[in-house]
Amino acid sequence: MRHLLTLEHLDRATITRLLDRAERFRNEGAPRDLLAGRTVLTLFFEHSTRTRTSFVLAAKRLGADNVNFDLSHSSTSKGESLLDTLHTLEAMHLDALVVRHNENGMPQYLADHANTGVAIVNAGDGTHAHPTQGLLDALTIRQRRPDFGNLRVTICGDIRHSRVARSDAQALHALGARDIRLCAPRAMLPDALDDFPGCTASEDFDAAIENADVVVMLRIQKERMADAQLPDASDYHARYGLDARRLALAAEDCQVLHPGPINRGVEIAPEVADGPQSRILDQVANGVAVRMAVLAELLTTPA
Amino acid sequence: MRHLLTLEHLDRATITRLLDRAERFRNEGAPRDLLAGRTVLTLFFEHSTRTRTSFVLAAKRLGADNVNFDLSHSSTSKGESLLDTLHTLEAMHLDALVVRHNENGMPQYLADHANTGVAIVNAGDGTHAHPTQGLLDALTIRQRRPDFGNLRVTICGDIRHSRVARSDAQALHALGARDIRLCAPRAMLPDALDDFPGCTASEDFDAAIENADVVVMLRIQKERMADAQLPDASDYHARYGLDARRLALAAEDCQVLHPGPINRGVEIAPEVADGPQSRILDQVANGVAVRMAVLAELLTTPA
Amino acid sequence: MRHLLTLEHLDRATITRLLDRAERFRNEGAPRDLLAGRTVLTLFFEHSTRTRTSFVLAAKRLGADNVNFDLSHSSTSKGESLLDTLHTLEAMHLDALVVRHNENGMPQYLADHANTGVAIVNAGDGTHAHPTQGLLDALTIRQRRPDFGNLRVTICGDIRHSRVARSDAQALHALGARDIRLCAPRAMLPDALDDFPGCTASEDFDAAIENADVVVMLRIQKERMADAQLPDASDYHARYGLDARRLALAAEDCQVLHPGPINRGVEIAPEVADGPQSRILDQVANGVAVRMAVLAELLTTPA
Repeated sequence: MRHLLTLEHLDRATITRLLDRAERFRNEGAPRDLLAGRTVLTLFFEHSTRTRTSFVLAAKRLGADNVNFDLSHSSTSKGESLLDTLHTLEAMHLDALVVRHNENGMPQYLADHANTGVAIVNAGDGTHAHPTQGLLDALTIRQRRPDFGNLRVTICGDIRHSRVARSDAQALHALGARDIRLCAPRAMLPDALDDFPGCTASEDFDAAIENADVVVMLRIQKERMADAQLPDASDYHARYGLDARRLALAAEDCQVLHPGPINRGVEIAPEVADGPQSRILDQVANGVAVRMAVLAELLTTPA
Repeated sequence: MRHLLTLEHLDRATITRLLDRAERFRNEGAPRDLLAGRTVLTLFFEHSTRTRTSFVLAAKRLGADNVNFDLSHSSTSKGESLLDTLHTLEAMHLDALVVRHNENGMPQYLADHANTGVAIVNAGDGTHAHPTQGLLDALTIRQRRPDFGNLRVTICGDIRHSRVARSDAQALHALGARDIRLCAPRAMLPDALDDFPGCTASEDFDAAIENADVVVMLRIQKERMADAQLPDASDYHARYGLDARRLALAAEDCQVLHPGPINRGVEIAPEVADGPQSRILDQVANGVAVRMAVLAELLTTPA
Repeated sequence: MRHLLTLEHLDRATITRLLDRAERFRNEGAPRDLLAGRTVLTLFFEHSTRTRTSFVLAAKRLGADNVNFDLSHSSTSKGESLLDTLHTLEAMHLDALVVRHNENGMPQYLADHANTGVAIVNAGDGTHAHPTQGLLDALTIRQRRPDFGNLRVTICGDIRHSRVARSDAQALHALGARDIRLCAPRAMLPDALDDFPGCTASEDFDAAIENADVVVMLRIQKERMADAQLPDASDYHARYGLDARRLALAAEDCQVLHPGPINRGVEIAPEVADGPQSRILDQVANGVAVRMAVLAELLTTPA
């Protein structure tokens, strides 16, 4: 592995190796000097304090130097091209560039032009991919349900625009999940399921959640509700929110995931978000471990 | 000690232990690895580069990882609740959360909901408390006048709205200061002295400063002068500014403190701020040491 | 050396020592603990992510603690004077203060008032000086052409307002460059050549580039083109842009430098910026090494 741009073509063995390493880091800690002397630069074109903090902690806990490149005041505002920025940073002896961008494919574009020796890590690009989120969700699920062959997962929310849904579906499919169900109002379903291998789609959440072992709830952007003719948060909640009644339709020990930050009372009811089946905070903890595993994988040669 | 939220109920022994440790750190340096592998997160809802830099240096000089959570662009602006932010950060394995907030009691609220294993450090909340400032002021005074039983202190400025005044008064009272005098125009005196144990209040600065061993001058916010019917900086300076004439009314070796940043010519004359009795820069140096002592106290078990 | 404010009076031996050390750091790496326990504060009053990142990496790669003092929200906006900020930072036990300011002489002013034990490093002040840029350009040139006695250098662009041009000219003159030619439209030439020792000035780029061993192209600010009666980027490019035709007038192996960020198609054509004679990315890499050498020089006593 040279970069981590998407989970689309990652095979089960590679994903499993990353999850195993993340699990070891969580349980046993990590060597504080594994990445000593290496430089990890975080380059966020979209604000995301939560994801950036997770990557920064991952880098620091392996001993890497971290520099944050704040783009709101950078040379890009002086008209410098993104590739000139990339090559400038590379010349400063960068080892990994963690990039978030609102345009699909921008991390791939950077990887296509990056020097050997620089790893590009996609921290989320447009609606395309959020591979570390896919990995951390898979790890979270595996901690309780290691047998993916029997796993039923429902992903509910704005599937069409969700990079989380794409990366989750791709990870779960690669790991052999039996049944992956996408659920959303029609306007929020994708036109085709090309990006969602092994998935089925429906609009009826009550049906889609039945017997599910895992429900992944997606954050809904209020501006998009009107497109779905559910202009009000309570309308949305009534049809696509996860509350205790709906959760009771799922399997008994169904795990509830959400990438955060959550809209309480919109896509998820407080009693579920804070309830015993919620894995939301485990996802956060796993997020740091997964990002450590990814950086370790990309920046060290296998023993 | 699990958190540091206020000095209100801290006893003399605890305060003395913290000051002793800070003094040792200043004189002998500190072990660079005391907090190695620990994470200190700074979470400032009010801008304060000076206090934040002091905490960041304190954390780094003990070997902790520091991450700064910039709230202006964070998930709180996406409507995430403060408690969800807290629990998210906790899940990333935070050891201490240094928080500044413009609302009274917010650090206490976070402490009430924090997991075991996370220490909340109040870096200033509203008009309520600024405990590390109280400690560093006590340390500064003690370096020249270790005998608090004979100490006369005058605190002058907008006492009513000052968290520094409250924390200073509480620290000095706990340490046994003989005489603590609050001085301000009526509109800037508190309605009651409940938060100011052992203190007296007056409006006449010339009288209040007489024989004082220490004068603590508070930064005045220009917007508040009108409330005191002293709308002009020079009016304020004439009645409540510390100049050489007034300082001569105090005890001969009276120490002058100010939490900074100072308004030269408003609450303090340049000749006093920069004069031989000024301890203002000692306060800054002591600030880093006190914050190191607080982090060390909260994050290490006593030997 | 106590500070690095300008290259104006630096002698050849000192410059050579700094360049030699930077070259060693590039080739052999640097001791990660050379500046362990030291604090380097970056204080930028002008945004420059690129130069700041270079200094931050230089500090971290020598093991120093780095704190970035963000001035947009700092106490200076509350009316604190720059000297009060300086003394406050000094009291926190600062070892080096890296400062960029839009006013000429501000780093000198800080150095005049700094305590013993604090090194001021000028990271660019107004149109006055950018000494680390001058050093890194000299290092870049020297890597290919160590014999300065035979060196012809052309510097082209807004010479009048360029701190890079001044520092480059001073470094090259001190190192004994044979011929330093400044080239710009009249409105962008300085009134006198006092700051440009050993330099000649002209307005004709085709003549000025003839036989040059090095061409340094300066970034042009679009707002300044009108002053030169070249209001359009293509007008400017036609008369003062470096393209393949003009580069062919220079010496065969002429090196092309630019401090970045570049305006492609304005002062430099893409085929030259990305061509085999471009040293632009070498400049960036040398920049980190030179800043490491400067920090090492200022913060350690010679063995």
